[in-house]
Amino acid sequence: MVTVKIPATSANLGSGFDTIGIALQIYNTVAAEEIEEGLVIDILDESSQYLPHDTRNLVYRAMKAVFERTGHDVKGLHIIQNNSIPVTRGLGSSSSSIVGGLIAANEICGRRLTKDQLITLATQIEGHPDNITPAITGGMAIAVKGEQTYYLSVPVNEDKLRFAVFVPNFTLRTKKARSVLPRTISHSDGVFNTSRAALLVASMITENYDNLKIALQDRLHQPYRRKLIDGVDIIFKKSSDFGALGAYISGAGPTVIAILKAENASQFDENMQKFLEGSMPKWKMQIIKPDNYGAQIVEGGN
Amino acid sequence: MVTVKIPATSANLGSGFDTIGIALQIYNTVAAEEIEEGLVIDILDESSQYLPHDTRNLVYRAMKAVFERTGHDVKGLHIIQNNSIPVTRGLGSSSSSIVGGLIAANEICGRRLTKDQLITLATQIEGHPDNITPAITGGMAIAVKGEQTYYLSVPVNEDKLRFAVFVPNFTLRTKKARSVLPRTISHSDGVFNTSRAALLVASMITENYDNLKIALQDRLHQPYRRKLIDGVDIIFKKSSDFGALGAYISGAGPTVIAILKAENASQFDENMQKFLEGSMPKWKMQIIKPDNYGAQIVEGGN
Repeated sequence: MVTVKIPATSANLGSGFDTIGIALQIYNTVAAEEIEEGLVIDILDESSQYLPHDTRNLVYRAMKAVFERTGHDVKGLHIIQNNSIPVTRGLGSSSSSIVGGLIAANEICGRRLTKDQLITLATQIEGHPDNITPAITGGMAIAVKGEQTYYLSVPVNEDKLRFAVFVPNFTLRTKKARSVLPRTISHSDGVFNTSRAALLVASMITENYDNLKIALQDRLHQPYRRKLIDGVDIIFKKSSDFGALGAYISGAGPTVIAILKAENASQFDENMQKFLEGSMPKWKMQIIKPDNYGAQIVEGGN
Repeated sequence: MVTVKIPATSANLGSGFDTIGIALQIYNTVAAEEIEEGLVIDILDESSQYLPHDTRNLVYRAMKAVFERTGHDVKGLHIIQNNSIPVTRGLGSSSSSIVGGLIAANEICGRRLTKDQLITLATQIEGHPDNITPAITGGMAIAVKGEQTYYLSVPVNEDKLRFAVFVPNFTLRTKKARSVLPRTISHSDGVFNTSRAALLVASMITENYDNLKIALQDRLHQPYRRKLIDGVDIIFKKSSDFGALGAYISGAGPTVIAILKAENASQFDENMQKFLEGSMPKWKMQIIKPDNYGAQIVEGGN
């Protein structure tokens, strides 16, 4: 049995729509082994209620893609999933399943694919390079989809930054979140995000975090999606009041993330928990560190 | 007399339209002193034919802006310009005049303005933060225009990179180059530049230059401006053939810049000079290093 541990990811980081994602210290595990015949999928946590246990399962589909690509002939498969990443919330649970499946399958067939090939293959399955890439590499990933996925990953300073992850008790389907995006935008809105995404990357790499308030500003998706997520404006406002460097809708939502200086995290936590309990009981918040390792084989690898 | 030396700048770096600029080792100098009365402007090089010698002069206008902002009362001014940066070619000659004027005036009135205030003031006069900022800071600057100019500058490795600067014997007015840009674009073109500008910044800072071919791709201005600049497609093609990492239209054009690995620069130079002499005599090319110092007071500062 090979076991892979895969971090949660937050894509669409501020201005970096479809481009910039970070890995976070929340983990799913995927374990897999070849068996004599059939497909047996065990899901050990409550996501078992929602996720398919047949050939539609994403871990299975990812494994199958690797076996097809490498010509590895497999009789049957046993897959065990243990998920801590909330499902359909904008924290990369789908990507983590795909990445887990890809890496497990690649181990089973003798590491025939390189990391770059896995990233490109994963993006073909899932479509969001800014979830897939940081799930594999850790840190902050900048990814561009093309014939292959072009990417660069850089570590996020875990001594200096924290991520306040606000997850509501309702979901938002990526398909619906996509449907509200316009087909055309003003040229100036294109320039707006281009400039801020450039500043965001420079600010994160050089650790000049005071720019984040400006650098996270976005006109490509958040203005259209805010109205789909009840309470998001209040969370942005309160996060700013309580000293966050900036906030953004994670992935296609509904999760909201506020970026904090580590030194302010415990005060922020105290203030925000009190506020949420009193005024916004649908939302839970926890403060998470960035993951700088990406998916790891924790057992049974080559 | 205070004398300031200001580098040329290449704005609109690839995907970084209105956002990313670099400073280059071509310099203008601006010298200035207070006199008893009047305005005397001497321009020592051939740009004297084109540039105004009266209150429309950009160095003068920039100095006046500083004096007004600081309440410094000036009787008369003597300005001497010595320009090596080609005029109206997309290499930041206007910005260099403004920056020279601002810094000279700030010295004259006792450094009353900070660097950040000078950058914001300069952007208000000139409008292009991606020329102004690297002219002041050196290196590669990422600049966002807002209530103030938000920016970050990082050094460009001058041991590793060279810039092949192709200047034609014709000009392109920024106003005309602006007029061909569309008012609206597709959402996907906005994402296209956002992703590539993010990758460009990460690639430059981490010195992963093999990404530049993808990261320099642009859909915000170059597709519209290429047709205004006769020969640009051939220069892009030949630059790629001769091993450039990527190429782009500098500023609003017509100058084209190809980015080279330093180790390939002399071979590129030999091949390209031969080609231009034989086939494209309207274009001159020289290989330039990045400037990592920005505007410097070379004489008579505080």
